[in-house]
Amino acid sequence: MNFLMKIYLLSLLYHDLLIFQITWLQVKSQRSKVHRIRENYWLSSGGLIAHADSPSEGGKSIFELNQKVPQKKKVVVLGTGWAGTSFLKDLDISSYDVQVVSPRNYFAFTPLLPSVTCGTVEARSIVEPVRNIIKKRNGEINFWEAECLKIDQANRKIFCRSIIDENLAGNNEFSLQYDYLIIAIGAQVNTFNTSGVLEHCHFLKEVEDAQKIRRTVIDCFEKAVLPGLTEEERKTNLHFVVVGGGPTGIEFAAELHDFVHEDLVNIYPSVKDLVNITVIQSGDHILNSFDERISSFAERKFQRDGIQVLTGHRVVSVSDRLINMKNKTTGNDDSMPHGMVVWSTGVGTHPVVKDFMEQVGQGNRRVLATDEWLRVKGCENVYALGDCATVDQKKIMEDISEIFKAADKDNSGTLTIEEFQDVIEDVIIRYPQVELYLNSKHLFDVADLLRDTDGNDRLEVDIEGFKLALSHVDTQMKSLPATAQVAAQQGAYLSRCFNIWDKCKDNPEGPRKFRSGGRHEFRPFRYRHLGQFAPLGGEQAAAELPGDWVSMGHSTQWLWYSVYASKQVSWRTRFLVIGDWSRRYIFGRDSSRI
Amino acid sequence: MNFLMKIYLLSLLYHDLLIFQITWLQVKSQRSKVHRIRENYWLSSGGLIAHADSPSEGGKSIFELNQKVPQKKKVVVLGTGWAGTSFLKDLDISSYDVQVVSPRNYFAFTPLLPSVTCGTVEARSIVEPVRNIIKKRNGEINFWEAECLKIDQANRKIFCRSIIDENLAGNNEFSLQYDYLIIAIGAQVNTFNTSGVLEHCHFLKEVEDAQKIRRTVIDCFEKAVLPGLTEEERKTNLHFVVVGGGPTGIEFAAELHDFVHEDLVNIYPSVKDLVNITVIQSGDHILNSFDERISSFAERKFQRDGIQVLTGHRVVSVSDRLINMKNKTTGNDDSMPHGMVVWSTGVGTHPVVKDFMEQVGQGNRRVLATDEWLRVKGCENVYALGDCATVDQKKIMEDISEIFKAADKDNSGTLTIEEFQDVIEDVIIRYPQVELYLNSKHLFDVADLLRDTDGNDRLEVDIEGFKLALSHVDTQMKSLPATAQVAAQQGAYLSRCFNIWDKCKDNPEGPRKFRSGGRHEFRPFRYRHLGQFAPLGGEQAAAELPGDWVSMGHSTQWLWYSVYASKQVSWRTRFLVIGDWSRRYIFGRDSSRI
Repeated sequence: MNFLMKIYLLSLLYHDLLIFQITWLQVKSQRSKVHRIRENYWLSSGGLIAHADSPSEGGKSIFELNQKVPQKKKVVVLGTGWAGTSFLKDLDISSYDVQVVSPRNYFAFTPLLPSVTCGTVEARSIVEPVRNIIKKRNGEINFWEAECLKIDQANRKIFCRSIIDENLAGNNEFSLQYDYLIIAIGAQVNTFNTSGVLEHCHFLKEVEDAQKIRRTVIDCFEKAVLPGLTEEERKTNLHFVVVGGGPTGIEFAAELHDFVHEDLVNIYPSVKDLVNITVIQSGDHILNSFDERISSFAERKFQRDGIQVLTGHRVVSVSDRLINMKNKTTGNDDSMPHGMVVWSTGVGTHPVVKDFMEQVGQGNRRVLATDEWLRVKGCENVYALGDCATVDQKKIMEDISEIFKAADKDNSGTLTIEEFQDVIEDVIIRYPQVELYLNSKHLFDVADLLRDTDGNDRLEVDIEGFKLALSHVDTQMKSLPATAQVAAQQGAYLSRCFNIWDKCKDNPEGPRKFRSGGRHEFRPFRYRHLGQFAPLGGEQAAAELPGDWVSMGHSTQWLWYSVYASKQVSWRTRFLVIGDWSRRYIFGRDSSRI
Repeated sequence: MNFLMKIYLLSLLYHDLLIFQITWLQVKSQRSKVHRIRENYWLSSGGLIAHADSPSEGGKSIFELNQKVPQKKKVVVLGTGWAGTSFLKDLDISSYDVQVVSPRNYFAFTPLLPSVTCGTVEARSIVEPVRNIIKKRNGEINFWEAECLKIDQANRKIFCRSIIDENLAGNNEFSLQYDYLIIAIGAQVNTFNTSGVLEHCHFLKEVEDAQKIRRTVIDCFEKAVLPGLTEEERKTNLHFVVVGGGPTGIEFAAELHDFVHEDLVNIYPSVKDLVNITVIQSGDHILNSFDERISSFAERKFQRDGIQVLTGHRVVSVSDRLINMKNKTTGNDDSMPHGMVVWSTGVGTHPVVKDFMEQVGQGNRRVLATDEWLRVKGCENVYALGDCATVDQKKIMEDISEIFKAADKDNSGTLTIEEFQDVIEDVIIRYPQVELYLNSKHLFDVADLLRDTDGNDRLEVDIEGFKLALSHVDTQMKSLPATAQVAAQQGAYLSRCFNIWDKCKDNPEGPRKFRSGGRHEFRPFRYRHLGQFAPLGGEQAAAELPGDWVSMGHSTQWLWYSVYASKQVSWRTRFLVIGDWSRRYIFGRDSSRI
């Protein structure tokens, strides 16, 4: 196709899809009361980028008039990933003294990391300096490029060390005092203690990882074409193995396939038939967190592309030349020579978080447990969000008697529909699994819950009937996935809580406390799933969209371009990412080893 | 200024300047016979990019008809810098079997390296894969990403090792046989054996060096703002020292000044007054290879910008915190604390070249000596070009008697003007210093050389008069600078020689051999200086243009943009470099530490 034509199409399609996406986000049906509650509830939060409210400056003038400025509370934030940045972006710092500690002085748009591995997008196009993000706050947020070594919960102190060891004038260790600590430190790679993984595998968590993978892919081709190698040796050097069939691993495999077949075969023609890509997945299907239509679409696409998918295999060890597996069905051992292995399975705990978990009595857990307000269980004034934490949702059955008692205003021992409807709004906010249960049963009204086993409406239920009606609700509880979307929503949620803290002390906005009476100060965090993409290469993608929609193919890839461009953290990165896509479209990907 | 306005101006100015440059290159006066000779002589060479002739394919059909294909000569090229790439770009490979060995699988546009150090231009924008450059040859040029460890001149063999040590299936060492060897390996950093330089200084020779400098500059700011440092410690961390006042060092200092004052002060406001940049120069002036008007313009500009220039100082040692110098005038020792040192002085010899020099009896030299045809002295079939070599120009006084004898056709013992004019064309080609001498004396005709001491025309001279007339000519001999321009011209020259080899065997095109009779097969290499730029920051530059023109200021910076954009090796890099400049103009430079 003609170059100019390509550029024209690119701009045209991108423009159309952006408009489509905006329209699609705006046109949302609100079908029932339950849905309306949900919509209202989320109206003021929103993602990292969508949120455009300026922080309230109300408190400032009072301080100025008062002269006697009250000591601002010290907030220390650990981490500048999705959670931390999202928290900082919306925080009203007129009432807090904020300090941020992170070994990375930039925010990285991690969903584009697989694109960086093959040069579809440049590393610099997906990062934005934290100081740029926070500088709108007039420098009142301090950022330190350092690693947190230890959290001392008893003394409300953290100990840090600059990541620059060499040639630093002055002491590179320091400590910070906090009133509130926000742990948004993310997770690290989980090797499941598989031997040889740390030494011989690549990972895909940091920008540097992606850059290293890019160099290594080129290395594999350069070593495969060296003079004097046997064909078998060339094949080994060009065998790329991806361990883990989740979205990151699959996207990397797809990107690599495109890179090889669109660009590298042209400049390494002598070895173009020797390249192999293998995905090893311990489960029965790749992309098993997705709808099964997407999973099988991806498997068929990979089969057509010649990407080998090895399901039901568990990796037992990795050496510099071999990857050893166990077939989970037959129990047989198997091994393959490889040129490069990318390890992309699960998340592990950061040592500093592990140590902190022991201090707060969570030593036997994998991630920090928080309540629904993102407060770390077992200690005060410490919040945890993003990949290093998980929300421990309270079961409704634990509080069922208290809910019944609170609802049964006339102490009649039975609950009428009216009495139930009086508390249901608070119940739905406090126990989001109720709403999930209603949706899963296709019930549009909470009154439907109280129907008898034959499906007939009942006018009232006793405590046993009430327990029975809600007995399956807790099965809908799901732990949140370790995704950017969850982290960003948690950050935005928490900053909102901090911003309205004073107001909510007097006028709590949260649901009723069924057990102790009164109301919670804030509404609990609730995750809104906006959908999930899986780019599959060859300008095709699959997507799970809200409302159980599934979309696959070329148009979904364009939707992906559109969504990812619009979600960029700044106009600079948006401009760069779109520029990179166009550059790739016109000139292909660069294969220089830098 | 409005953003859109900026973009508009950018495109407008760039367009205008490109046209101006093209016109300027086309309009060249040819004032005298001497100048005409020079022009004709250079008509078919040209720079790396300008040359667009397709290689002749004449030989091929003969081979095909003949069936008995003669063995192609094996040409091995070491290096993919300016010299190597320029040689490969124009080589007609129908008669050669070409193999290229280099540890870098890309060509880097090194004059833009200082821009990469501060993110004005991205590293990837200035590199082009070697395989892309040579693939038009249908893969008949083989490239190996490896380092040459040893040249075995006696057996016409080189020994190489892949730069990838780890995880390579197969042997990573190999050897290659050559009929002709082209050494275009470049030079390495010259520390002049100053202690601590290798350990504690940054260099600016490779793309990786520039990337490392970029990270370190950000590190210096990050360490300077850490809590708990004294002001003195912050100042030390922000003291940037450049050793060497040549074009590279000066351009880096200027780039750094712009980066600090245009971008970094905005995001590190607390330390903006603590930044210092110092240039240490052993000579009396910076940019002392340039016209002194440029040198003093640069010094004044640096003084206004607050960049400290320390002339007449020699660095004696560098430690992790201090740089120790000797004042060459007073003899006093002096030292300064530093946050970062960039060492940018002179070029040193690559170990493999050093070893080879010992094999060919040049062990006591600094760089490989070649004759005027770029053939390494002391051995056969080995050529050296670029920074690792220097052309040992023959002195005219060594051959003066032979020239006289050859010119004196009637053996009269005296030379008439006509006899002299008969040989002068060959003399000028063989001894380019004659032309330089004529230019320096503002003589437009060679006959003027033979005038007597009072300036009167003479009809004939004897051998003593002839010697006297040419006695000062050799003072004009200059060794060629170690620049990209020289290397590129040498590569283009040598490929032309290789391309016309068969033709010139029968019909030599070179000048007369005054000593042994007959003619040289090829014309000797002659360097054509096209000018030199020194960007000085703040959108100002200085330039030496052909014909002793000097240009300074903002318009020169635009000329610089124009020339550097047009000189890019591919449309891809041209597009990227211009994109980077525009991006910097609109969004500033990125300060993420990646």
